[in-house]
Amino acid sequence: MTGVIEHFHAVVPAGGAGTRLWPLSRAGAPKFLLDLTGSGRTLIQATVDRLGPIAGHRIMVVTGAAHRDAVAAQLPEVDPDSIVAEPSARDSMAAIGLAAAMLERRDPDAVMGSFAADHVITEPGVFRETVRTAVRAAQDDWLVTIGIDPLIPSPAFGYIHLGDPLESHPGAFKVRSFVEKPSVHVAREYLASGEYRWNAGMFVVRPTVLLDLLGARDPEFVASLRTIADDPGRIDEVWPALPKIAVDHAVAEPAAERGRVVTVPASFGWDDIGDFDSLAELLDTTGEATSPIVLGDDALVHALHSTGLVVPGSGRTIAVIGIEDIVVIDTDEALLVTTRSKAQEVKHIVSALKESGRAELT
Amino acid sequence: MTGVIEHFHAVVPAGGAGTRLWPLSRAGAPKFLLDLTGSGRTLIQATVDRLGPIAGHRIMVVTGAAHRDAVAAQLPEVDPDSIVAEPSARDSMAAIGLAAAMLERRDPDAVMGSFAADHVITEPGVFRETVRTAVRAAQDDWLVTIGIDPLIPSPAFGYIHLGDPLESHPGAFKVRSFVEKPSVHVAREYLASGEYRWNAGMFVVRPTVLLDLLGARDPEFVASLRTIADDPGRIDEVWPALPKIAVDHAVAEPAAERGRVVTVPASFGWDDIGDFDSLAELLDTTGEATSPIVLGDDALVHALHSTGLVVPGSGRTIAVIGIEDIVVIDTDEALLVTTRSKAQEVKHIVSALKESGRAELT
Repeated sequence: MTGVIEHFHAVVPAGGAGTRLWPLSRAGAPKFLLDLTGSGRTLIQATVDRLGPIAGHRIMVVTGAAHRDAVAAQLPEVDPDSIVAEPSARDSMAAIGLAAAMLERRDPDAVMGSFAADHVITEPGVFRETVRTAVRAAQDDWLVTIGIDPLIPSPAFGYIHLGDPLESHPGAFKVRSFVEKPSVHVAREYLASGEYRWNAGMFVVRPTVLLDLLGARDPEFVASLRTIADDPGRIDEVWPALPKIAVDHAVAEPAAERGRVVTVPASFGWDDIGDFDSLAELLDTTGEATSPIVLGDDALVHALHSTGLVVPGSGRTIAVIGIEDIVVIDTDEALLVTTRSKAQEVKHIVSALKESGRAELT
Repeated sequence: MTGVIEHFHAVVPAGGAGTRLWPLSRAGAPKFLLDLTGSGRTLIQATVDRLGPIAGHRIMVVTGAAHRDAVAAQLPEVDPDSIVAEPSARDSMAAIGLAAAMLERRDPDAVMGSFAADHVITEPGVFRETVRTAVRAAQDDWLVTIGIDPLIPSPAFGYIHLGDPLESHPGAFKVRSFVEKPSVHVAREYLASGEYRWNAGMFVVRPTVLLDLLGARDPEFVASLRTIADDPGRIDEVWPALPKIAVDHAVAEPAAERGRVVTVPASFGWDDIGDFDSLAELLDTTGEATSPIVLGDDALVHALHSTGLVVPGSGRTIAVIGIEDIVVIDTDEALLVTTRSKAQEVKHIVSALKESGRAELT
């Protein structure tokens, strides 16, 4: 099947600073505004590119007020009225819930699909076919997630525990439960069982179904979201009181307990680029690089007996000698030197900079 | 004994790019013009500071024409006429020989001492007492070297093989031979024997003795040097034809064979800072640093679980995570990332930059 899916609306939550990608990502230049793949398109541009063939112009972005202009500049094809600015960060339930409240007013037959602005998907055709299957299940009032085939027993992702196939929708399975990031040991058992998929945080659902599921636990939250959708001028008044909660905890997990969630397993390449180790993994397409992967102008990098990732972001020449799995991130204001295996610790540097009064660098 | 030594003239050859200290040292900013110890004084300033108490104002610097102005600016206490500019690099025999030819004209009773501009000496008082002993032997027409007590079996230095004590000059020993940089294995045997000292390239000698020793093998060389000393206006004409040879090969080694060389063993702290490993060793005074040594503003460096050497030379913040013995040299135009054990390989990067047409960075 090809072509735009009728009544399908793509929602792109664009939040999160990506502190583990400092100093490439910073508060003023979050991950989704960066071209982390060397493709010439930023992550949010690639996300919208990927959705265009199935969503057409029905794309809504929800981002922080500070990033609204940058998002609009990167996405000239998105209607400026569909770039919703959050007055403050209220976590994903508020962002996605507001989009749902706006969409149920615009289109009573709407099915929304929520896809983060900062993920990388390497097989967009497979992704889109998966979304088509998910939309069909969502039209029957299921909350539908997409469950990625786990390639490795990663402790960095949450998992979806599959139940029985959904007879009415081939390709969809009931969800028994969502599980938080496991240990590697437990993740290995998950993979061996064949019953688990990575939770990529992608939801496909009718807006009213989403709001009803939320309203079953927090009707006031839903009323507030509908108030804003009804009169956007009241956002500054109503928004600050919204609960800070992730859509997973507010809706997906309780709905799974009530048997209301299904998942469409899929095997497209997916990464949330959580840190520089993931980024190096993503960019080293052969897995056998004998010199550092360079994201940027590789004429600036001179490496001897080294592997890893080098980002020459300041225009300066960078020489690297004799270090395996090195990570060198060179920007105009800050320089990071670490290894792929220590990449998770970058967030501690960001915290230390804030604590030492150098928040302007974060 | 204290005070200026009569008729003693210090000669400071200031040459060598220090390619293994790239990008801190560069062709336009060689090692001797840099403050590599964080003392507030550059290496050549510290060299002149160290010589002042025994040489007074009798200090002559021989440097490349390109560095003459920078040397003069760093050494306001040195008579500009005593800063001799080499039209081109002709190795150490030409530089030291020219100084000798100039000094034998100025002062028939002169004893010259040649001390490189880019060495570090941590016990200047002991150094000066050693030079006093050397000057006394030189007045009796010996070519006198200074032999440093070897602390470790370093393969990075040449060695002096001691012979019998010189009865006429307590503290001086005949030199059997000079030996080139040995393997670590051979160096260990040298240390065990007690008969070897590091050759620090320091010579104390009467200028005429030095020129006569050279003239015994290459009278034309000496004639050319005396021509320039006689009429400095002819330097551009005569200089380019001078042999490119080190003073060690041209004079010291053959003179040792003829039994004309003595050495004064000494135990002051000495280093030629051959690479970043030596520099880290020098700066880590306790030898037990648990975070990287910072040469520069340590407020710019945030390190976690790392040791080594960080030079924050561009004003940017540098974060280092989880690497032992890391070397990070950050300058405005280039960045080096390596480890102490690979520091010797930096010269290959400099060669590669030259070969790839980026000599402006070297």
